[in-house]
Amino acid sequence: MNYCSECSGKVSWRIPPLEDMPRFVCDSCGAIHYENPKMVVGAIPEGNGKILLCRRAIDPRRDKWTLPAGYLENGETISACAQREALEEACAQLEALKPYALINIPFINQVYFMFRARLVNDDYRAGIESLEVKLFGVEEIPWDDLAFRVIHDVLQTYSEDVKTGVFPFRIMDVEPRAID
Amino acid sequence: MNYCSECSGKVSWRIPPLEDMPRFVCDSCGAIHYENPKMVVGAIPEGNGKILLCRRAIDPRRDKWTLPAGYLENGETISACAQREALEEACAQLEALKPYALINIPFINQVYFMFRARLVNDDYRAGIESLEVKLFGVEEIPWDDLAFRVIHDVLQTYSEDVKTGVFPFRIMDVEPRAID
Repeated sequence: MNYCSECSGKVSWRIPPLEDMPRFVCDSCGAIHYENPKMVVGAIPEGNGKILLCRRAIDPRRDKWTLPAGYLENGETISACAQREALEEACAQLEALKPYALINIPFINQVYFMFRARLVNDDYRAGIESLEVKLFGVEEIPWDDLAFRVIHDVLQTYSEDVKTGVFPFRIMDVEPRAID
Repeated sequence: MNYCSECSGKVSWRIPPLEDMPRFVCDSCGAIHYENPKMVVGAIPEGNGKILLCRRAIDPRRDKWTLPAGYLENGETISACAQREALEEACAQLEALKPYALINIPFINQVYFMFRARLVNDDYRAGIESLEVKLFGVEEIPWDDLAFRVIHDVLQTYSEDVKTGVFPFRIMDVEPRAID
């Protein structure tokens, strides 16, 4: 951020009056520009005892497998977001959404919220952002070809839960690492 | 948003190339400025069989009662946010945080996440944003003097759960209304 989105003045990174954390503040009009984490919402789509993964058609991590998920939009509920992303990425309809995990990724200012959900039918196929969509048994998950660490961690927890058949909602953290 | 924060050019509200939703797009450099919902995180602090509420010292809803909660900051986990807000607003230390509710408020682009949490000790007092902090039994909650509808709805659900002693994590929606 270089300029004020309200008046086009230069901004500086400083602690605004009466506050205690640095923000982008406009040197001309004084507007404070807050930046906050973004929510990414998705689902583990379940069908025929398997789960649906999507092979990414876009960067980053093109060719790698992921769960349908994406940024929550203004005006949208988290359930609607998970359903929209499944439709966009896998042309898949989801129902019976159950909260499964919230994952903090503070070093990239993201919070993931993942549902478990039921595939309404077998009528799914690659959406515009996917090369391929496919059902995997938990024992078939392509661990070495997953797109993101958060997806790896969620699926690892999920595959443990499958053994017991109990899927408690939990909060998880992804820690910073040389390669994420 | 009037100007591009990268180059200070004028922005217009239009659908960017290859996308399907309108965004603020810079007419000069083409930068797309995404706007997404913000997370507000807080807690229901429990102690001595009661819960801690704060009477607001600041607008909006000065003088009204609320739960400690506030915007999630970049670099912060949601548990850390709930603990920071309780410290700032009620000088209260929280432990044993348990996920309690996620509340969609899509018409103001907010997602609330509320924990239940245990007050570490009785050493709490009004922080700078509070006029007063006080323990209330659920039968003493000042229903007509709560600051926000989301707080009303969470406390209503909570007071029902107290009767059974079971506090399942749930997703709730606040619907638009003439007065929120």
